[in-house]
Amino acid sequence: MNDAIALSEILERIGPADAKAMRRAEARQMDLTKPPGSLGRLEGISVQLAGIFGAERPAVRGKAVIVAAGDHGVVAQGVTGYPQAVTGQMVRNFLAGGAAISVMARLGGVRQIVVDAGIAAAPLPDQPGLRNMRVGRGTADLSRGPAMSREQAVRCLEAGAALAREVALSGADLVATGDMGIGNTTASSAIAAAMTGRPSAETTGEGTGRSPEELRHKASVVARALEVNAPDPGDPVGVLAKVGGFEIGVLAGVVLGAASERRPVVLDGFISGAAALIAYGLSPAVRDYLIASHRSAEKGHRAVLAHMRLDPLLDLSMRLGEGTGAVLAMGIIEAAAACLGEMATFGEAGVSDRADGDEEGG
Amino acid sequence: MNDAIALSEILERIGPADAKAMRRAEARQMDLTKPPGSLGRLEGISVQLAGIFGAERPAVRGKAVIVAAGDHGVVAQGVTGYPQAVTGQMVRNFLAGGAAISVMARLGGVRQIVVDAGIAAAPLPDQPGLRNMRVGRGTADLSRGPAMSREQAVRCLEAGAALAREVALSGADLVATGDMGIGNTTASSAIAAAMTGRPSAETTGEGTGRSPEELRHKASVVARALEVNAPDPGDPVGVLAKVGGFEIGVLAGVVLGAASERRPVVLDGFISGAAALIAYGLSPAVRDYLIASHRSAEKGHRAVLAHMRLDPLLDLSMRLGEGTGAVLAMGIIEAAAACLGEMATFGEAGVSDRADGDEEGG
Repeated sequence: MNDAIALSEILERIGPADAKAMRRAEARQMDLTKPPGSLGRLEGISVQLAGIFGAERPAVRGKAVIVAAGDHGVVAQGVTGYPQAVTGQMVRNFLAGGAAISVMARLGGVRQIVVDAGIAAAPLPDQPGLRNMRVGRGTADLSRGPAMSREQAVRCLEAGAALAREVALSGADLVATGDMGIGNTTASSAIAAAMTGRPSAETTGEGTGRSPEELRHKASVVARALEVNAPDPGDPVGVLAKVGGFEIGVLAGVVLGAASERRPVVLDGFISGAAALIAYGLSPAVRDYLIASHRSAEKGHRAVLAHMRLDPLLDLSMRLGEGTGAVLAMGIIEAAAACLGEMATFGEAGVSDRADGDEEGG
Repeated sequence: MNDAIALSEILERIGPADAKAMRRAEARQMDLTKPPGSLGRLEGISVQLAGIFGAERPAVRGKAVIVAAGDHGVVAQGVTGYPQAVTGQMVRNFLAGGAAISVMARLGGVRQIVVDAGIAAAPLPDQPGLRNMRVGRGTADLSRGPAMSREQAVRCLEAGAALAREVALSGADLVATGDMGIGNTTASSAIAAAMTGRPSAETTGEGTGRSPEELRHKASVVARALEVNAPDPGDPVGVLAKVGGFEIGVLAGVVLGAASERRPVVLDGFISGAAALIAYGLSPAVRDYLIASHRSAEKGHRAVLAHMRLDPLLDLSMRLGEGTGAVLAMGIIEAAAACLGEMATFGEAGVSDRADGDEEGG
C-alpha cells in the first residue's frame, strides 16, 4: 500500500537530537551572566531545542498550533454530558476567533490551523485556517468494535504528518498540538491503558461535574472497549484503529511529521498525550522532540506523561484541551531559547564569575 | 516628618478589590465557550484582575518590570560566593540588554526599569531606563546592627511607591518586581524570619554550590542579625531598617504604590516576596493586588508564600531573581485576562451549553 510506505518513510526520517549541539549549548549556559542552573527548567529546554535544531543558539521564529477535531461514535454510550453537535460548533468558534485557543493564539502570535479530521457535522466551507482532512463522519463506537479501519488510521497519521511538515517548512519553529472532540477523553483513556499497560481505572478521569456513577460508567465503557478490541501495544496503528479517534490519529501524525522535520512538538494535555503515545510507540526517537506543556487536571494524563518520562512545564489545573496549555507554554519555551541565544556571557558583559554559583539575586 | 506622612497617605489609598466586578467576571466565566473551570488557575487570575481594575472584562495593555538593585554590608561576613562588584556589573548588564531579565522583557514587550537603590559602586551616568534612587552606598552589616536608619527605610518605601505610581499612570497595567543585590538572600531570610515568626533555619536556603558548612554559616549570620536587632513584626518599617536592604525597601514601596493605583503586582521570587512581606505588614489589603509568579528554588520562599497565602503560578526550579519569574508569568496573566475579555459566550457562538461541565476536549 502506498499509504503504509509513506508512513514508513516518515518514520525513517526521524533521527535523534544533535548531541554535539546540546553539549555546546550546555557549555554556553554555564558562561551566561547568571549563576549556573538558576534559570531552572528553562536551561534544559534550551539545550533540548539546541539538540533538535542542531544549533548552539536555537532561534524560535514562527509558532503554530494544529487543532484537530473529530467525533466519536462512543458518545452513544452516554460517556459525555455535552451533545455531539458541540464538536462542530466549536470548530466554527475556533474559526471565528471566539474560543480560548483562538484568543491565546492571537495574543501569543501563534498561527492557528484547524483540522476537520472527521466531525459528524456537515463539512464547513473552505476558508483560511481550516484544513479538511475528513477521514469519516465520526468514528464507530469503540465499545462495540474498532473505531475505524486500519487504512483510516494510516490516513490520519499520514495526513497529520504531511500537515506538520508543511507547517514546519513554512516557518513554524514550534509546533503545538490541540484537540476538539466530544467523547475523546474516552478514546484517550483506552489508548493510554493499551499503550502503557495500566488498568483503565488509572487512565479514566472524572472531569468536572461528573458524578461517581458517571465515572464508573465511563470506566466500564473503556474496559469494554479494551476487551472487545484487544489492542496490542506492539502495534500502535492497530491501537489507533481499534480505540482511537480521527483527530487523535492526525495529532499522532503531527508529532511524527514535526519530528521528521526536526521541529519541537509542544504537547497539550491528555488527548495530545494519547496521540503522542501512538507516535512514540511507532518511533521512540520522537521523545527527543517532545515538550510536555502542562499537567492536565484529567487523571489519565499522569500515566501518559510517566510512560514517556515527560515532565510538564506548567501545572495550572487546566483541562480544556484545544491546545491551550501548549500555547501558554510556548512563551516559556521561547524565553528559554531567547536567554540562551541573546544573554551576554560573563566575558562580554564584564561581570565577575565564580565557579560554583549562588542563590537568587545573590 | 513629611516622608512619614507621605507613606501614611499611600497606605490610606489602598482599598480592597471590587467585589461586584469580581462577581460579574465569575458569572461571565461561566458563560464562556468552555466547560466551567476548565481554564483552571487562569479563571481565578482573571477574576482577581477584574476586582483590581473594577471591570468585568479587565484589559492588560502595558507591562513593566521594576528591577531594584542594592548592596549589602553583610557580605563582609562571607555569606555569598560572588564579589560585591557583581551588583553594579549586573546593573550595567541590565541596561545593555544582556541579562536574563532584559532578554525576557524584550521578548515579552515588558518595559524594564532599573533602579539604583543604593549599590556600592559609583553612580552610573543618567540614561534611559535607569532611575537613581541611591539611599546609600550599600547597607551596613545587619549582623552587627541595623542595616539602615529608619529614615532611610521610609525613603526607600516612598521612592518605590512613587515610581510604581508613575509607571502605573504611564500605562503599565501589570507591574512586576525584580531584584539584584549580592547578599540580599541573607537580608531576605532575616526579614522572612522576622515577619513570619518562623525560625531562621526555615527561611535560610542553600542556593547552588553552597556547601553544608557555608549554609550553616549563613544561617548563623541570619540568626545573629535577628538577635542583635530584635526586629518587631508589628513594625514593618523597623524590620526593613534593621535587617532589610535598599532594593528590598524600594520593592516594598513598589508593591504599596501599585496597589494604591489599583494595579496588580506580579511578584518574582524570594527577595520580592520578602519585600511584599514588609508591604503586607504595613497594609494587609495589598494582598488583593498580589500575584505570585513562581515558586523559587530558594528554600525560604515557601514560608513567605505561606504567610501571605499566595499560590504561585509557575514552578520551574528558577532562582535567578531580577524579575525573571515575574516576567515569564506575565504572559499567563495576560492570557487569563484576554480569555475573559475576548472569548465568545455560548450564546454568541451558537454552542450548546450544559450545566455541569465536561473533561478536556470532551
